[in-house]
Amino acid sequence: MNSIKSKVRHIIFDSDTKPAKLFDVLLLWAILLSVVVVMLDSVPSIRDEYHFELYTIEWVLTILFTIEYVLRIWTIKKAFNYIFSFYGMIDLLSVLPTYLSIFLSGSSSLMVIRTLRLMRVFRILRLVGFVKEAKMLVEALKQARYKLTVFFGFVFSLTVVIGTLMYLIEGPENGFTSIPVSIYWTIVTLTTVGYGDISPHTVLGRSLASLVMLLGYTIIAIPTGIVSVSFFREKAEFTTRTCSNCAKEGQEHDALYCKFCGSHMKT
Amino acid sequence: MNSIKSKVRHIIFDSDTKPAKLFDVLLLWAILLSVVVVMLDSVPSIRDEYHFELYTIEWVLTILFTIEYVLRIWTIKKAFNYIFSFYGMIDLLSVLPTYLSIFLSGSSSLMVIRTLRLMRVFRILRLVGFVKEAKMLVEALKQARYKLTVFFGFVFSLTVVIGTLMYLIEGPENGFTSIPVSIYWTIVTLTTVGYGDISPHTVLGRSLASLVMLLGYTIIAIPTGIVSVSFFREKAEFTTRTCSNCAKEGQEHDALYCKFCGSHMKT
Amino acid sequence: MNSIKSKVRHIIFDSDTKPAKLFDVLLLWAILLSVVVVMLDSVPSIRDEYHFELYTIEWVLTILFTIEYVLRIWTIKKAFNYIFSFYGMIDLLSVLPTYLSIFLSGSSSLMVIRTLRLMRVFRILRLVGFVKEAKMLVEALKQARYKLTVFFGFVFSLTVVIGTLMYLIEGPENGFTSIPVSIYWTIVTLTTVGYGDISPHTVLGRSLASLVMLLGYTIIAIPTGIVSVSFFREKAEFTTRTCSNCAKEGQEHDALYCKFCGSHMKT
Amino acid sequence: MNSIKSKVRHIIFDSDTKPAKLFDVLLLWAILLSVVVVMLDSVPSIRDEYHFELYTIEWVLTILFTIEYVLRIWTIKKAFNYIFSFYGMIDLLSVLPTYLSIFLSGSSSLMVIRTLRLMRVFRILRLVGFVKEAKMLVEALKQARYKLTVFFGFVFSLTVVIGTLMYLIEGPENGFTSIPVSIYWTIVTLTTVGYGDISPHTVLGRSLASLVMLLGYTIIAIPTGIVSVSFFREKAEFTTRTCSNCAKEGQEHDALYCKFCGSHMKT
Repeated sequence: MNSIKSKVRHIIFDSDTKPAKLFDVLLLWAILLSVVVVMLDSVPSIRDEYHFELYTIEWVLTILFTIEYVLRIWTIKKAFNYIFSFYGMIDLLSVLPTYLSIFLSGSSSLMVIRTLRLMRVFRILRLVGFVKEAKMLVEALKQARYKLTVFFGFVFSLTVVIGTLMYLIEGPENGFTSIPVSIYWTIVTLTTVGYGDISPHTVLGRSLASLVMLLGYTIIAIPTGIVSVSFFREKAEFTTRTCSNCAKEGQEHDALYCKFCGSHMKT
Repeated sequence: MNSIKSKVRHIIFDSDTKPAKLFDVLLLWAILLSVVVVMLDSVPSIRDEYHFELYTIEWVLTILFTIEYVLRIWTIKKAFNYIFSFYGMIDLLSVLPTYLSIFLSGSSSLMVIRTLRLMRVFRILRLVGFVKEAKMLVEALKQARYKLTVFFGFVFSLTVVIGTLMYLIEGPENGFTSIPVSIYWTIVTLTTVGYGDISPHTVLGRSLASLVMLLGYTIIAIPTGIVSVSFFREKAEFTTRTCSNCAKEGQEHDALYCKFCGSHMKT
Repeated sequence: MNSIKSKVRHIIFDSDTKPAKLFDVLLLWAILLSVVVVMLDSVPSIRDEYHFELYTIEWVLTILFTIEYVLRIWTIKKAFNYIFSFYGMIDLLSVLPTYLSIFLSGSSSLMVIRTLRLMRVFRILRLVGFVKEAKMLVEALKQARYKLTVFFGFVFSLTVVIGTLMYLIEGPENGFTSIPVSIYWTIVTLTTVGYGDISPHTVLGRSLASLVMLLGYTIIAIPTGIVSVSFFREKAEFTTRTCSNCAKEGQEHDALYCKFCGSHMKT
Repeated sequence: MNSIKSKVRHIIFDSDTKPAKLFDVLLLWAILLSVVVVMLDSVPSIRDEYHFELYTIEWVLTILFTIEYVLRIWTIKKAFNYIFSFYGMIDLLSVLPTYLSIFLSGSSSLMVIRTLRLMRVFRILRLVGFVKEAKMLVEALKQARYKLTVFFGFVFSLTVVIGTLMYLIEGPENGFTSIPVSIYWTIVTLTTVGYGDISPHTVLGRSLASLVMLLGYTIIAIPTGIVSVSFFREKAEFTTRTCSNCAKEGQEHDALYCKFCGSHMKT
């Protein structure tokens, strides 16, 4: 019994043997399929025509996910910890809405929670080992965290002040019906999205809008600059190859001899 | 008396003791609350329903800000300097509109000036010490100042010339009613905002517009490049490698000898 | 006979002699002309007026391309390999639609395949030697491949989750008719394109939209940072400082000893 | 006489003495004023109301510019060279339209050529010495020239292929009336401008559009990366301070001792 339990745990939680890898790949496709089903189910024309097919796939996948969930709880040592962990909650939220839909009819808003299943993909990717690159990205962003916070604090204050000004200049008759709406417009403009659902009509408003656009066009350089430098540093730190003679870091990957003392480098 | 005065000054102007920090945090929330009240007050539906509540909060906050303003003038040594300083003006503008609204009815345009209160947040942040990061950003931008000026001078000239051309090509019948409007359109397009309130309809106009878009898409690289390099330099100068002889920071990573005193550096 | 065959092959496949270069230049212009003809043919007003002219040019060019295609098959040693190569397929697809149009009337959708002829331009450019720069670009992008994949995987998951949320918040009555449409809107907003064909109308929807815009505005910094660093590395590796002992290129600017043979380097 | 001529030439063409500088500043403002007049003259409401004032200013400025033009021809040694130089042509085009407007009534399209006067600003800026920064920018862009050409060649081919596909998928009934219009839409989307005057409506069209947006969002990183690296190199090359003892370049601006050999550096 215990042997089966540990075997199942190995297959579900790890990915270093063949059956474990196969399980991961199958789970990955099941998750993606289930998300596609949720999406298609939200399209009125498709829901009407293929209601039965979508309904069937949904229930098959839900039951499979439920079995998987139960197996996880059964095999893991600290079941309590798992249930209240981030991925444990996601796993539960992936199956719960389908069961609740039996009792609560017409709960379509509940049903879309199932797209959260997509988050489960990240667990699998973590196992498969696609994470070194992600880690470097996250590390670089973490390093830039304070600067980005300062930047966004500044941008937010700017949108409030500009939004207020535009509310004064354009006013409700040109679509700037309140300060929050004006701030929304400012963000739309500053980030160069530019829906055009609200746009200035007065000369003064258009002049200020032009300034905001040019500002947005320039200050986008700031987060880009911050992140670029972070990435560069991050990368630079990944070339800490050290000479065994003079102990100097920063040796290129293709160097055969230390560029500072000239002694031969092994590796 | 003098002891109370200096204690109050300490609490208001500094942030190194517990009560002073508490004061800063409370003031921060009071400012943010008051800005939210001004915003909500500008939304017609909310103003109609919660008029009394907003009115009450506004007056309570205004009186608190007034007491704070008076305390600042009372406790500071050079009251005159404070009153006419940048933050002194902001402090005054934060409370004045509410009092004026008693005498001048219907002065909603005056009331929105109160969002300037948001600027007061920066003073608190300065005290709390979130500034090292901000300083580096500002320093890097300062360094890039001349290049950015040249760039924007060039962009502005470009928009005038392109705006004139589009006015000639499309003309008033396609929404390009005057050269200033054409310039506005050029800025909207060059910065990739693209509202769509004005858009070209002739073949020649669309061809020129395509060129403008591709141009805008490319020249955004210029300020980004400028700022990135600035950030990189700024960061490089913040290197903390220290000479063991003269104890000066800012040594390059690949330096063999201290660049300030010339003594040999042991990694 | 064999001599003619090898001469023709030389002219068609190489570009190091005068006639071979002339052939390339002529072919380049013929391709560009034929693409322009296909484009103009799709404009209703031009097709009606200049139908005969376009028709004539099209057939002349098609016959020339056919002759070229036959000559290529005839002169090349491994004709089979050529026919099923990427460029061989493009060459065939360039002439086939015109011939098929005789039998299949009204096959305009087939005709536009002819714009694929444009791909043939790249073969010529490859011969002419414009490739060193392209190679560096491609190499740099290749290096950034994994990081970009991770980034886009993350962005795609994000659009699904945000799209679902917006579908819940705004709903079909505000244009968010299904989850796929909501995801489409999320991509339009996150990439700062902002058509405005769908835009949020509720307070909550606009707040979330503002967050999405600011997010899109920031995370554009990530691919830019990744690619910038890649380019910088790529460029750094192209340093032409050469060791005077082993004559190997690619020495770092600050190296004191050659990193390949270890001999001292005199600047 | 000759003395006056050389004095006038000095004032007009140079900017190192006080009167010469004053002349430059006055000319700068006159040019900007004249451009503003041309702009305002294109606004129907302003033209109707202030026709006389604009007309008067225009003529005064035109006569002043004419005098300046004549003085330039008179004082310069090689008048012929000047007349047919770039700035000579601009100077002529600045005054000609106003005179022609006497004979050709209703030639408003001719009149807007006068905004070219703005180009004259650059000559003054060149004299004043704002050019070092501009030179570095231009130099960096020149260096990136080939890479940018390859990039734009690639982007252009891409827009043709995508434009053709969208024409097939969406067709004239959804606003994609011809291949050139589809290419225009592709450029609008790829550059993230997104007017929304044309937008896809079919599922397949929206999917392809999403791909194009994400592509545009990423490949903007390429020119940015190219230009950033160029700027960085450019900047790096501007620190070619060399040690007089070991003759090594790359010394920091604030270094007192060579970082490679440790000898004292005389500025």
